[in-house]
Amino acid sequence: MRQPAHGGNLAWAAALAGCPPDAILDFSASISPLGPPNSAIAAILSQLGSLKHYPDPNYSELRLALSHFHQLPPEWILPGNGSAELLTLIGRELAQLAATILITPAFGDYYRTLKSYNAKVLECPLISYEQRVLSAELPVLLSTQHLARAKRPATANSTHCGLLLNNPHNPTGKLFSRDSILPYLEQFALVVVDEAFMDFVPPNEEQSLIPVVQEYKNLVVLRSLTKFYSLPGLRLGYAIAHPDCLAKWQLWRDPWPVNTLAAAAAIAALQDTEFQQQTWAWLPPARNQLFQGLAEISGLQPQVSAANFLLVESQQSTLQLQQQLLKHHQILIRDCLSFKELGDRFFRVAIREESDNQRLLIALSREWGVGSGE
Amino acid sequence: MRQPAHGGNLAWAAALAGCPPDAILDFSASISPLGPPNSAIAAILSQLGSLKHYPDPNYSELRLALSHFHQLPPEWILPGNGSAELLTLIGRELAQLAATILITPAFGDYYRTLKSYNAKVLECPLISYEQRVLSAELPVLLSTQHLARAKRPATANSTHCGLLLNNPHNPTGKLFSRDSILPYLEQFALVVVDEAFMDFVPPNEEQSLIPVVQEYKNLVVLRSLTKFYSLPGLRLGYAIAHPDCLAKWQLWRDPWPVNTLAAAAAIAALQDTEFQQQTWAWLPPARNQLFQGLAEISGLQPQVSAANFLLVESQQSTLQLQQQLLKHHQILIRDCLSFKELGDRFFRVAIREESDNQRLLIALSREWGVGSGE
Repeated sequence: MRQPAHGGNLAWAAALAGCPPDAILDFSASISPLGPPNSAIAAILSQLGSLKHYPDPNYSELRLALSHFHQLPPEWILPGNGSAELLTLIGRELAQLAATILITPAFGDYYRTLKSYNAKVLECPLISYEQRVLSAELPVLLSTQHLARAKRPATANSTHCGLLLNNPHNPTGKLFSRDSILPYLEQFALVVVDEAFMDFVPPNEEQSLIPVVQEYKNLVVLRSLTKFYSLPGLRLGYAIAHPDCLAKWQLWRDPWPVNTLAAAAAIAALQDTEFQQQTWAWLPPARNQLFQGLAEISGLQPQVSAANFLLVESQQSTLQLQQQLLKHHQILIRDCLSFKELGDRFFRVAIREESDNQRLLIALSREWGVGSGE
Repeated sequence: MRQPAHGGNLAWAAALAGCPPDAILDFSASISPLGPPNSAIAAILSQLGSLKHYPDPNYSELRLALSHFHQLPPEWILPGNGSAELLTLIGRELAQLAATILITPAFGDYYRTLKSYNAKVLECPLISYEQRVLSAELPVLLSTQHLARAKRPATANSTHCGLLLNNPHNPTGKLFSRDSILPYLEQFALVVVDEAFMDFVPPNEEQSLIPVVQEYKNLVVLRSLTKFYSLPGLRLGYAIAHPDCLAKWQLWRDPWPVNTLAAAAAIAALQDTEFQQQTWAWLPPARNQLFQGLAEISGLQPQVSAANFLLVESQQSTLQLQQQLLKHHQILIRDCLSFKELGDRFFRVAIREESDNQRLLIALSREWGVGSGE
C-alpha cells in the first residue's frame, strides 16, 4: 500500500503492523481522545428510525443549533459532509481569482482542491529554512515580498487574490491572533480561515474570526465538529460566510450532503457543555506532559502548540522511526511527507490521555535510541 | 416554506399538515417501505465504536463487497455520499462535452448539476404532448431529429455529446431494454445511465448496463443503495465506470465522502439476500394493487411502471389535491412541478405496503370527489 497522504489511515497502519486496525494506538489523526460524547451517541441511536427518510435539505434544526451556538443568523451557516466537502466548494470559489496565497506548510487537501480547479497557488512559507525555525508572527510573513509575488499575474494585485490559511495552523499548532488576520480582509478579495482546531482553544484565549464575519463579505470561516467531538467517521463540518456566497455553493452540490445521524449528533454535541469543559480541562496539562517528554529526548524538538497536536522536528529521518513504532509498538505517528516543506525531518503527534502519551514517550525513547545508534 | 423540489421533504409537509414529521405517511419519496434491513441496522450499531476514526479513504472493504456483488474488479467501483454526490462529479465531466442530451421529464438534480458547470443541455422528450401519452421505446426517441439538434453546436456532433438517462426512468417508471441503450454507446462520447431504481426489478427481468461496463470506456452506471434498502438518511450510492475516469473524479472531491456507518450498512445489506427476496416478492402485487385502485378512480390514469413508484396523470390540477391529502389525511404525494414538462397535471406515488396503499386510495377517492366537484 502507498504511504497515506493523511493521518488516521488505520487500514494502512494495521497492514504494516500486522494487527487489526482497532489495536493501533493512533497519534496520527488529530482527534480528541475523550469523545465521542455520550450525548452524541445517544442522539445517533435516537435517529436510527429516521434513516428511512431523506434528511431535511434545509438542515433547519442543525442550522438553528449552530446559530444559537455562534450567535449568528442561520442563513450565515452552511453544514457540510465534513469540512473537507466544503473545502472543495471553496477551492472552486478561489479558482475564480487571479491567485490564492497559501500559508505553508499546508494541509494536502488545500492543494488537491485548488489544483482540481486549476487555481493559481502562491506559497507563503511559515518556516524559515535558513534558520530552521518557525517565524514569529503571521503579519511578518505576508510581507511586501509575498504580495509582490501575488501581484505577478498581469491582471492581478492582492485585491484580486485569495488567502487560505488555518488557525490554529496545522501542522505547526501555531495560533495567530485575530488582530493579525484582520488587515488581510482589506487586502484580499477572499480570505478563508480554516478553524478546524479552534474549538480546542479555551474560550478566553480563542481567536476565531466568527465574531466579525458579518462585517466582511469576503470572509469565509470553516469549522469541523469531528475533531473536538471525536466523530471523523460521521463527517460533519460547516462554513460560515455571507448568505449569498453560501446560497451559490449550495447549487454546486447535491441537496443532501449531511447524513441524518451526523446532523443529530452535532445538535447534541453543541449543547454538551460538560464535554466541552472536560476537553478544555484535559488538553493543557496533557499537551504539557507530552511536550516536556518529547523535549527531553535528545534530537527531538517539539514546537509550541495551541492545538491538540504537536509538530516535532527531528535530527534524522522519521520514516524508519514511524515503521519501527508500528511494528514494535503498534503506535502510529503522522509523518510529514505530505507537507513538502517538512519532508522526513518532522513528525506530528496528537495529544492523547496521559497513559497513552506516556506509552508513546517510552516507545519513542527506545526506538529513537536504536534508530540514532545511541 | 417554498414548495420543495424533491420528494421526501417531511419538514415542509409536517408544517403544512400541522403534525410532527413522523406522523406523515410519505408516498412522495420512492423509498422501499420494507427496510431498513435488520442486518444494516446491526452493522451500524457494530460500528459506533469506529466513529472516532477516519473512514478508510480507499473504502477497500466496501469496494470489495460491491465487487463481489457485481462481479467486477474493485477499481471499477467508486462509492459516494449518495448517488447525488456522484451526479455532481458526472455533471462536471459532461460539461466538458459540446452538449448533453437529457431524456425528459428528468430528475431536477440533473439540471442543477449540469447548470452549475455551464453544460449545454438538449432535451429529448419521452412524452408526446400532442397525444399526451408516453412514447413506446427509447430508440424511437433518440431519432435523427434529436441528434440533429445535438449537432447544432458548430463543433459538435453526437460523438462529441453526452447522454444522461435513468433506467427505470423517473418519474414514469418505464424500463428500457439493455439492447435499446447499447447503440448509443457507439454514438455518444459519454453515456451515463442512472440505475437508482434498477435493483427493484427482479434479477430475471433487470436491464442493467453493468454487465457490459468493461466493454465501453464511455459508459458510466450510477447506483443507489438508499432506495432499495430504505436508508436515504445515511447517504450511499456508487458509480461504476472505467478506473481512469473514477480516479480522476476522486481528485475532484474530498478524501472521505462516505461515512463509516453508511459503508458498514452497505456491506451488510448487499449480503442480505433474504431482504432482497422479500422486496422482489412484495413489489409486483403491491404495485398491481395500487395501479388497479388508481385506475378505478375516474379522472386518474396511472402509468405502467417497472419501479417502486407510479406516475399518475390527472384531469385537473393536483396541487389542491396534494394540500388536501396533507391537511385531511397527513398523506404526502409527490407533485411533479419540478418536472417542468409534467407540471400540475401529474403526481407520483411510491408503492408502499398493502394497508398504506389502501389508505391512500381511500383518501384519494374522497378528496378527488371533493376537488373535482363530483
